[in-house]
Amino acid sequence: MVSVKVNSPDVHYDDVEHLIISRYSYESTHVSYEEDNNYIATPKSTEYIFKTSTTIPKLGLLLVGWGGNNGSTLTASILANRHFLTWETRYGTHHSNYYGSLIMSSTVKLGFNAQQSAVYVPFYQLLPMVHPNDIVIGGWDISRLNLAASLDRSCVLEPDLKQKLNPYMKDLIPMPSVYYPDFIASNQQSRADNVLSGTKQYHLETIRKNIRDFKSKNQLDKVVVVWTANTERFSSLLPGINDSAENLLSAIKENHEEVSPSTLFAVASILENSPFINGSPQNTFVPGVVELAEQHRVHIGGDDFKSGQTKIKSVLVDFLVSAGIKPVAITSYNHLGNNDGLNLSAPSQFKSKEISKSTVVDDMVACNNILYKEGEKPDHVVVIKYVPSVKDSKRALDEYESEIFMGGRNTISIHNTCEDSLLASPIIIDLVLITELMTRVQYKTAEMPEFDAFHSILSILSYMLKAPLVPAGAPVVNALFRQRNAIENLFRALIGLRPQSDMLLEHMAFH
Amino acid sequence: MVSVKVNSPDVHYDDVEHLIISRYSYESTHVSYEEDNNYIATPKSTEYIFKTSTTIPKLGLLLVGWGGNNGSTLTASILANRHFLTWETRYGTHHSNYYGSLIMSSTVKLGFNAQQSAVYVPFYQLLPMVHPNDIVIGGWDISRLNLAASLDRSCVLEPDLKQKLNPYMKDLIPMPSVYYPDFIASNQQSRADNVLSGTKQYHLETIRKNIRDFKSKNQLDKVVVVWTANTERFSSLLPGINDSAENLLSAIKENHEEVSPSTLFAVASILENSPFINGSPQNTFVPGVVELAEQHRVHIGGDDFKSGQTKIKSVLVDFLVSAGIKPVAITSYNHLGNNDGLNLSAPSQFKSKEISKSTVVDDMVACNNILYKEGEKPDHVVVIKYVPSVKDSKRALDEYESEIFMGGRNTISIHNTCEDSLLASPIIIDLVLITELMTRVQYKTAEMPEFDAFHSILSILSYMLKAPLVPAGAPVVNALFRQRNAIENLFRALIGLRPQSDMLLEHMAFH
Amino acid sequence: MVSVKVNSPDVHYDDVEHLIISRYSYESTHVSYEEDNNYIATPKSTEYIFKTSTTIPKLGLLLVGWGGNNGSTLTASILANRHFLTWETRYGTHHSNYYGSLIMSSTVKLGFNAQQSAVYVPFYQLLPMVHPNDIVIGGWDISRLNLAASLDRSCVLEPDLKQKLNPYMKDLIPMPSVYYPDFIASNQQSRADNVLSGTKQYHLETIRKNIRDFKSKNQLDKVVVVWTANTERFSSLLPGINDSAENLLSAIKENHEEVSPSTLFAVASILENSPFINGSPQNTFVPGVVELAEQHRVHIGGDDFKSGQTKIKSVLVDFLVSAGIKPVAITSYNHLGNNDGLNLSAPSQFKSKEISKSTVVDDMVACNNILYKEGEKPDHVVVIKYVPSVKDSKRALDEYESEIFMGGRNTISIHNTCEDSLLASPIIIDLVLITELMTRVQYKTAEMPEFDAFHSILSILSYMLKAPLVPAGAPVVNALFRQRNAIENLFRALIGLRPQSDMLLEHMAFH
Amino acid sequence: MVSVKVNSPDVHYDDVEHLIISRYSYESTHVSYEEDNNYIATPKSTEYIFKTSTTIPKLGLLLVGWGGNNGSTLTASILANRHFLTWETRYGTHHSNYYGSLIMSSTVKLGFNAQQSAVYVPFYQLLPMVHPNDIVIGGWDISRLNLAASLDRSCVLEPDLKQKLNPYMKDLIPMPSVYYPDFIASNQQSRADNVLSGTKQYHLETIRKNIRDFKSKNQLDKVVVVWTANTERFSSLLPGINDSAENLLSAIKENHEEVSPSTLFAVASILENSPFINGSPQNTFVPGVVELAEQHRVHIGGDDFKSGQTKIKSVLVDFLVSAGIKPVAITSYNHLGNNDGLNLSAPSQFKSKEISKSTVVDDMVACNNILYKEGEKPDHVVVIKYVPSVKDSKRALDEYESEIFMGGRNTISIHNTCEDSLLASPIIIDLVLITELMTRVQYKTAEMPEFDAFHSILSILSYMLKAPLVPAGAPVVNALFRQRNAIENLFRALIGLRPQSDMLLEHMAFH
Repeated sequence: MVSVKVNSPDVHYDDVEHLIISRYSYESTHVSYEEDNNYIATPKSTEYIFKTSTTIPKLGLLLVGWGGNNGSTLTASILANRHFLTWETRYGTHHSNYYGSLIMSSTVKLGFNAQQSAVYVPFYQLLPMVHPNDIVIGGWDISRLNLAASLDRSCVLEPDLKQKLNPYMKDLIPMPSVYYPDFIASNQQSRADNVLSGTKQYHLETIRKNIRDFKSKNQLDKVVVVWTANTERFSSLLPGINDSAENLLSAIKENHEEVSPSTLFAVASILENSPFINGSPQNTFVPGVVELAEQHRVHIGGDDFKSGQTKIKSVLVDFLVSAGIKPVAITSYNHLGNNDGLNLSAPSQFKSKEISKSTVVDDMVACNNILYKEGEKPDHVVVIKYVPSVKDSKRALDEYESEIFMGGRNTISIHNTCEDSLLASPIIIDLVLITELMTRVQYKTAEMPEFDAFHSILSILSYMLKAPLVPAGAPVVNALFRQRNAIENLFRALIGLRPQSDMLLEHMAFH
Repeated sequence: MVSVKVNSPDVHYDDVEHLIISRYSYESTHVSYEEDNNYIATPKSTEYIFKTSTTIPKLGLLLVGWGGNNGSTLTASILANRHFLTWETRYGTHHSNYYGSLIMSSTVKLGFNAQQSAVYVPFYQLLPMVHPNDIVIGGWDISRLNLAASLDRSCVLEPDLKQKLNPYMKDLIPMPSVYYPDFIASNQQSRADNVLSGTKQYHLETIRKNIRDFKSKNQLDKVVVVWTANTERFSSLLPGINDSAENLLSAIKENHEEVSPSTLFAVASILENSPFINGSPQNTFVPGVVELAEQHRVHIGGDDFKSGQTKIKSVLVDFLVSAGIKPVAITSYNHLGNNDGLNLSAPSQFKSKEISKSTVVDDMVACNNILYKEGEKPDHVVVIKYVPSVKDSKRALDEYESEIFMGGRNTISIHNTCEDSLLASPIIIDLVLITELMTRVQYKTAEMPEFDAFHSILSILSYMLKAPLVPAGAPVVNALFRQRNAIENLFRALIGLRPQSDMLLEHMAFH
Repeated sequence: MVSVKVNSPDVHYDDVEHLIISRYSYESTHVSYEEDNNYIATPKSTEYIFKTSTTIPKLGLLLVGWGGNNGSTLTASILANRHFLTWETRYGTHHSNYYGSLIMSSTVKLGFNAQQSAVYVPFYQLLPMVHPNDIVIGGWDISRLNLAASLDRSCVLEPDLKQKLNPYMKDLIPMPSVYYPDFIASNQQSRADNVLSGTKQYHLETIRKNIRDFKSKNQLDKVVVVWTANTERFSSLLPGINDSAENLLSAIKENHEEVSPSTLFAVASILENSPFINGSPQNTFVPGVVELAEQHRVHIGGDDFKSGQTKIKSVLVDFLVSAGIKPVAITSYNHLGNNDGLNLSAPSQFKSKEISKSTVVDDMVACNNILYKEGEKPDHVVVIKYVPSVKDSKRALDEYESEIFMGGRNTISIHNTCEDSLLASPIIIDLVLITELMTRVQYKTAEMPEFDAFHSILSILSYMLKAPLVPAGAPVVNALFRQRNAIENLFRALIGLRPQSDMLLEHMAFH
Repeated sequence: MVSVKVNSPDVHYDDVEHLIISRYSYESTHVSYEEDNNYIATPKSTEYIFKTSTTIPKLGLLLVGWGGNNGSTLTASILANRHFLTWETRYGTHHSNYYGSLIMSSTVKLGFNAQQSAVYVPFYQLLPMVHPNDIVIGGWDISRLNLAASLDRSCVLEPDLKQKLNPYMKDLIPMPSVYYPDFIASNQQSRADNVLSGTKQYHLETIRKNIRDFKSKNQLDKVVVVWTANTERFSSLLPGINDSAENLLSAIKENHEEVSPSTLFAVASILENSPFINGSPQNTFVPGVVELAEQHRVHIGGDDFKSGQTKIKSVLVDFLVSAGIKPVAITSYNHLGNNDGLNLSAPSQFKSKEISKSTVVDDMVACNNILYKEGEKPDHVVVIKYVPSVKDSKRALDEYESEIFMGGRNTISIHNTCEDSLLASPIIIDLVLITELMTRVQYKTAEMPEFDAFHSILSILSYMLKAPLVPAGAPVVNALFRQRNAIENLFRALIGLRPQSDMLLEHMAFH
């Protein structure tokens, strides 16, 4: 079902090949700097042709860390939506939904109708997309707890819903996973009763086989793999080991200790032509993984789901700096009581998280040299603490201290109850849906001999990620509204519509 | 000094007429709805030619309510900047600045340089603009306190700075103003020792003469008038009285009681060809004023400076709804101890403010029919209280309660120390600078016989205003980032640059 | 079961009459003021003999507004405790408890044991007291909804618990109540389907009969009546109408419009010798009620349950002022979405609440003339708003702005999720248990010819009440820790123990 | 000037010896436990005679870390008070005061006057006490910056006041101090330009001589020494080194590395018969110091000034637990930008602070075995971060999560702007004034052969301290109101007044 059809000489719907083909002028500006303090800006237009397959595949999703809070919540919620479940809460009967998903629950302005009213459509209606209800889910976990029991342990969903989901979930058992104790907190040891033995090469082959089997058994067209397991410590970047695709594959063969579980899963996915997304902060994507993905033309995305505190930060700091206000101190405290919090209570794992969270304002600060001198940054502190009593109900306490006009100060203090897994789960859906769509898109410019896919590293996923991975040389954008604009305008481009300018020029005229 | 020069066949710099002439394709989308549940989107391109005068005028600014906290802070700060004053604070020596001004202290991405690095320039470098240091300030006030004394009373700036400013400010005495007790709180009576006597017609003529005298005495090219005085009660819309330009002028002649002071100032400004901006929430712009402005091709803008709590709200609600999260209750409490707070402690004046603040989320909610059913809105409460002890240091306590995935709840609680006048003053500067620029812009489309100015009602000022006034039939946009995009893209258009798409398509390619 | 037995010549346990008889020296200080700026303090000791009956009665509790959130929550919770119910929540299995009850869940320091360790005992072990599990509950309501349905509507307890309670509650139907629309918000009209018709005199007699019938039917020894219904507007104090017991009874006979429902219930209770407690802020206790209670030697207590924001305020302001810190502004915002909030959204009802909440710091401020000049008070604002979406989960946002050393400022901002009915219900239990105990206490001093009860107005209940009612001439104490000390030391006195001095003198010695 | 005079046979004012002699019955309760689940409470009365010298001495105060923020603020403020300085601020002219001092700015209820009104008097009027204006201040610092410059660096007081204080402060230069880099953060190195060279024994002798010289030069009767310098790491408790007075003195002679600077200052003070107070969290008072103080009958007190977040915590947790509410998680985040924060950013120093702050709720939790099972505690997290931009304006963000009635949850979130040095300075004054008073008090019980001073360890100072030091075997009380009661009731006892019972029994009677 295509809900939006574009009527334009630049757009062609090929019903035989099941393609939308659009011609698109991409506008950019080249800037040079003249001696006399002036910038010379030269507009530049590049012609693109986009080809988007309209055939919606049967999609599988494999989660690493399936039995974790995100994994069990996501699985339960998709099942509840698929079966139209309702359940009792203190506040009455509740219905399943996809709130918090950009694709499923937000809208974009398509244009204006004849009555000059703006017309908004759900994001998922712009292009043919997989519906989350249709995703087949599976996964690995170092714990062999069935998904119904995992869900219970997570303390996320309501008892009545858990009971109704039980028949669908009690027989879902994660496949054995990879457990290298050195990479995650030692407090995770007690959960590790479902782990692959043997060498890393054997692990790689097992995971590849798992992916193939899952695909064939469920007659899937595509599989996306998502790391939603524990935060690992950072891997050391070692020449000869993980600096190239070839070296990395050798290192795995040689059972090298610096190959992390997440890197191993990424390699397996790429070799099985399955896109891989890293939802945790560690550097899964060592150079060898990136090169391997590029060689195989497989999409990858990361790092670290952006769900709560950091997401708001990427809004507020953008707002402040782009209003000419100067944040001088950003202090971010978090506590949570789920297993993520327990794992992060170990120093190396927290270090990975801290790095991921701390760069989020850098691009916004760097763009304003009126407020910040070269190299100047606001004080920025990130703290995460494990407080078991609050369970999955994460609390974020932030303070933004800014310098305003004429030496004044503005202090914004925020207490945010984040509901960790309920914010993260719809973000996983968005990552999967957009990634899947990207595998169906090809483009060509005048300079290109033939159509090609987008770069393996999907920077378009930045909206959903705390520390967006981008191709070498590309700018990292953390500002949330810019990230959203990028998705919206790309979707529009694929159907031959120009970017949103928000100008409303037609309404600035005397009628 | 023009700092950005565009090199393009679509842009012509006319050094004789002192014009920038740009040709611009404005892209929009027409949407129609088909029977089978599909939207048909038809791209549409309109050619515009913009002519922007590059001659920076000598600009005057007349403030109604000059001796209020905004007026005295703004005057003091411009003087401090002009004279490069520094002053001692608890934290060390401080320098004058224009932080908090979009135009003076924020940047825009111009484009990319040869090294593929983004190039950001201050907003004020995109086009030739008046520098705030060069603005000549004057105004009216119902209190005859000199500006140095007003500044002291305001409790906004530091003692050392006030002392240094004293020689520049002690002889600045507001012109007598218009005081109709029925329109503002009775607690303002005691300040009213500098008021015009006589009829409304006489008041109108006096104000017009004040504007002319101010202009000639200071050899000004243009004057902008800004209402930064007390919030008035709403005016009743009365057929035959304020429903047309003609009736309004008659009503003034007849000394009709329902013509408010702010309406009178607006009429005087329009008749003197001076743009008028309303920084308070009341309905100054009754239909007769709007018609008069249109007849005289004078720009007007309003209503209500958007400085603190509402500004953040217009960011956060946009963020939430456009992330697919459903705010169900927005509760906004404020207290402040300045004269604005005292005046707002009267019910009718608070009513004006409440209306202004309460519509700010309506457009964002209305655009998402996945989250909100037809007519459904979040609970929305706005409270303002007068708490003398906090003086100008306004406190805003907000709670955003949202429904998230699968019935979860997200609670965001914010405590914001807003420093009222220090946030509002740079916004006044932005309003004045952009309004002045708009008076230098003409445009023409193919359908137009000749060049014309933009519509009298400057919707482009929305970013700075809580309840943006827009031309009849135009959509009200409250989402702050969209409002900023509108300004940025209009500025770009005037120099022949395409809108920002945030797509970074060039970085999505395999190199 | 008596758990604490005092071994002292001053204490006698009379097992025949079932009494504890204690002799107690009450120490106080008389102060006079001398010319030369000195105070003369004269210690004074008064001998009391206390007689406390140890016979625990079978107790009934009648709630006015039984079907409201407090009434249904309290009933449900006592039933759940009585039947040892457990229930499922997101976080696991939960057990019934009496958390939040001073008597049932807090402890007092009894003394030191031989090992010099402090010995703490539950409050309820100091003296023989009714156990809440044994209370028989009934009541009136203007809505005829059964209690199971009321509980459901309240959105307070978990679905699983509600289901388990259903058999115990579905047949509990409130008796018809008194509904005088003028006294509560007009928005309550739609609930009023269970109201007594006829005259006020008839209402009085009906209520009296209800109390008698409830008592006999359940074979109760005593009944306490608690107003937990809607906040009413204040009654006007009218000479000849409600200024004396006699006039009030006449006014009822004459069906006078200024006799409120709560006053009527108070009169009925007093005439039936049942203590009456007013849990709402209105002036139920007009002079005529107080006189009637005194004449009948019946205990009364009020006004307004102190559960959330005000309770913390009565702690924090006491803390600040008694630390030599000067609060200059206290700003208290509340919003809630239950029926209490709906009723309070009407101006007259809010007015009652505002008065109740606003005097809470007066005694603490008045006691410190170093910080506050004669008549000086901090700014104090109280706001309550109806926000349906948050239901019974009340939110309190407070700001305490204080002046500290040398002109510094301390700002404390609090966001408090108050869970209205879950905080109020155990307070009702405390009120009932302590009131019941007070009916069993008699005392005598040397000046008294014979034993007497405490004054009808139970100031000892102040800890649980926002606007404590005290006998004429007695000081109102709002400081929470002082209120608690009063209860603790009175309980100690009844068993012949001296007050807590917190001095620990024995530990200040060289050993 | 004695302001309160007690008229009682138990009190004697000896005008020859300048003594107040009071006889006092100290009441306590002995508790034993019987087989049948009952406690037997036996009241016990102990007769004390107190002798308090009324001769107010000329007092000197020596601060270790004189040039730190506390030291310079305290010195400046006492000077400002002494010279009745006023100064300009944004908000107007300000006067010197002692707000925040329990002794100087809070009141106690003396008793009731003939009109039955409560009479409150300032704390300092209960007994003859040193006035802070009369204290002579000096001190040591590892930085040789003069006090005017220190004050400037601290960013605490207003520019106008600093300027007026400059003549009084610019010539105040700290004496060289002891700097053992191992004990404080390495980031303090750059300040250490004023340090004693030589051995620890030499340091000890130098400090002793400093104290003697300060005393004689200023003709002082007494000197109190206060450690307000950097937090040190904890000292290891080493048998043979710091486990006895004798060993400690030997260890100093042998220049043992584990003798910290603060321990050295404590030893020097004790040997000079000067009370010593430790305002930082480290374990200055190793067993050898305590024994030495006891041998010399010199008073000591500590540890760690209780000024902001912890002070409120010791109120709120006491309030919650004693209301029968169960805190399950207490999460305390702090950030500050002064040198204290910088020093605490080092792990060992933070460790000292964390220990000090984390035990503060233990006694309150331990006293309630209804809410907490044996050994159960709430989650408790304390974080301190260095955020230079906020300077001395410390921010405390706390969350109290509690379980309430029937499984409900109460969440209290607090944002507190603490103004570090302005809260701490008056607390130092209280510590000094009360300590000085304690040196003038002697007491005797029937069991004692003669009068003696209170124990060297002044547990009465607990109100002002985060981790109160008490004599071996004595209970640690952290509950703030109990701590205050202890001071108030001790002061009352010294003038023969009974403890406050808060009962108001006289007001519970029918008149």
